[in-house]
Amino acid sequence: MKIIKYKKNKEIKHGILKENDIYSIEGDIFKDFELGEKTAKLKEVELKAPIDPPNIIAIGLNYRKHAEESGLRIPDKPIIFLKATNSLTGTGSEIILPKLAADEVDYEAELAVVISKEAKNIEAVNSEDYILGYSCANDVSARDCQIRKDKQWARAKSFDTFCPLGPVIETELDPDKCSIKSILNGKVMQDSNTSDMIFSVEWLISYLSHNMTLKPGTVILTGTPEGVGFARKAPIYLKDGDEIEIQIEGIGSLKNKVIKEK
Amino acid sequence: MKIIKYKKNKEIKHGILKENDIYSIEGDIFKDFELGEKTAKLKEVELKAPIDPPNIIAIGLNYRKHAEESGLRIPDKPIIFLKATNSLTGTGSEIILPKLAADEVDYEAELAVVISKEAKNIEAVNSEDYILGYSCANDVSARDCQIRKDKQWARAKSFDTFCPLGPVIETELDPDKCSIKSILNGKVMQDSNTSDMIFSVEWLISYLSHNMTLKPGTVILTGTPEGVGFARKAPIYLKDGDEIEIQIEGIGSLKNKVIKEK
Repeated sequence: MKIIKYKKNKEIKHGILKENDIYSIEGDIFKDFELGEKTAKLKEVELKAPIDPPNIIAIGLNYRKHAEESGLRIPDKPIIFLKATNSLTGTGSEIILPKLAADEVDYEAELAVVISKEAKNIEAVNSEDYILGYSCANDVSARDCQIRKDKQWARAKSFDTFCPLGPVIETELDPDKCSIKSILNGKVMQDSNTSDMIFSVEWLISYLSHNMTLKPGTVILTGTPEGVGFARKAPIYLKDGDEIEIQIEGIGSLKNKVIKEK
Repeated sequence: MKIIKYKKNKEIKHGILKENDIYSIEGDIFKDFELGEKTAKLKEVELKAPIDPPNIIAIGLNYRKHAEESGLRIPDKPIIFLKATNSLTGTGSEIILPKLAADEVDYEAELAVVISKEAKNIEAVNSEDYILGYSCANDVSARDCQIRKDKQWARAKSFDTFCPLGPVIETELDPDKCSIKSILNGKVMQDSNTSDMIFSVEWLISYLSHNMTLKPGTVILTGTPEGVGFARKAPIYLKDGDEIEIQIEGIGSLKNKVIKEK
């Protein structure tokens, strides 16, 4: 099923998207739920980020070819970092280039995993029981802050609107072999497959759960493949008026316009 | 006023502490509220972390003497990092030394600021309008992860129970001249004053608000003074059975026992 969060008549709620119709959710998305009544058509609503996470945990350098293009060795253990929750935004909304760091803002297509129930010290073979579903994310990053100005990545990754997520949470997906792409103004920039991941989704969830309790709704960004803007011979950064799209096979397309902060 | 969160008869709620009595809160702590009826005595309840923050933002190296003891130069801009919200715990609870990083866990006494209303691009002179109050925090840190194993601090700072906060949120305090101490098993380890801060609370809130929207309930840890365990000639780390206390003048005392994860 495809879980969405949407706004209609000033009210924001979860629903289930089936083709172009939205149905209510009977029950609790973190426990048991089923399809309710038809409530709206997709074209009548505004989509929001499909979850309100207690934490956004991100993994650095989890695709072999991206580690290579970044000039970094393949890590033995995943690099863990956090994005502040104010960075969250939905599909169709704007990514804002912040005044303090407008010039080197980069895209990163990522498969996002949403946790369904409290996970602590779980084994990789059991990870699937703790997954609500999958979404597309853009781990937007101010490279000047990330690479030169700050040693810690928190600020570079946490400006408002720097975590587009959506359009849906797909509850049925095999996360180990999905095509993943980013498309800038119609041109494919990243074109890879989750099979290039160094650490699998199930292994990552187990590893993270040994380091911290993953609370329901936690969003995990599983790393980005090669093709990001800063690693190109002639670096490409997001600029006012751009449209950036993240596509993951089986989930959908997350689209955002780029504007400059006034 | 001293805002607390407490558990009594399986119910958890906010209250106001006045001497040893707890009163209900009439209204919304983020808007207007006043003292209600007496509901319990302090000794009858279990105190919890006084707020459930959307983000825990922390500042590195904000005391001159701590920058010196760490062998680092005084920064021009604050170092920003994040602690995941699963790290939060209250006074009287246990700090757990995690299996994955049990040997070099350190304490850091910090003045915590709690944000009352959405703050974006605000001026330092107006910061006070966005502050609900102040609390004591312990920015517990696994130094092996922070200094040697990981480049990013997120994991080192985000193990469960690594952010004790409390015992209260004091709404009336001058944050620029408070005595701040940590006391390990009765021995004073850090003994400083917030007047040694490089960046003042009001400046920090303004700066952070230019980088990200501070949502109501956001907790900001404003850095730790000199005297932490790892920087001593013979390093001192937390061990099973220890009791660590953070005292800030005008707020109170945050006490936690230390145990090893089983």
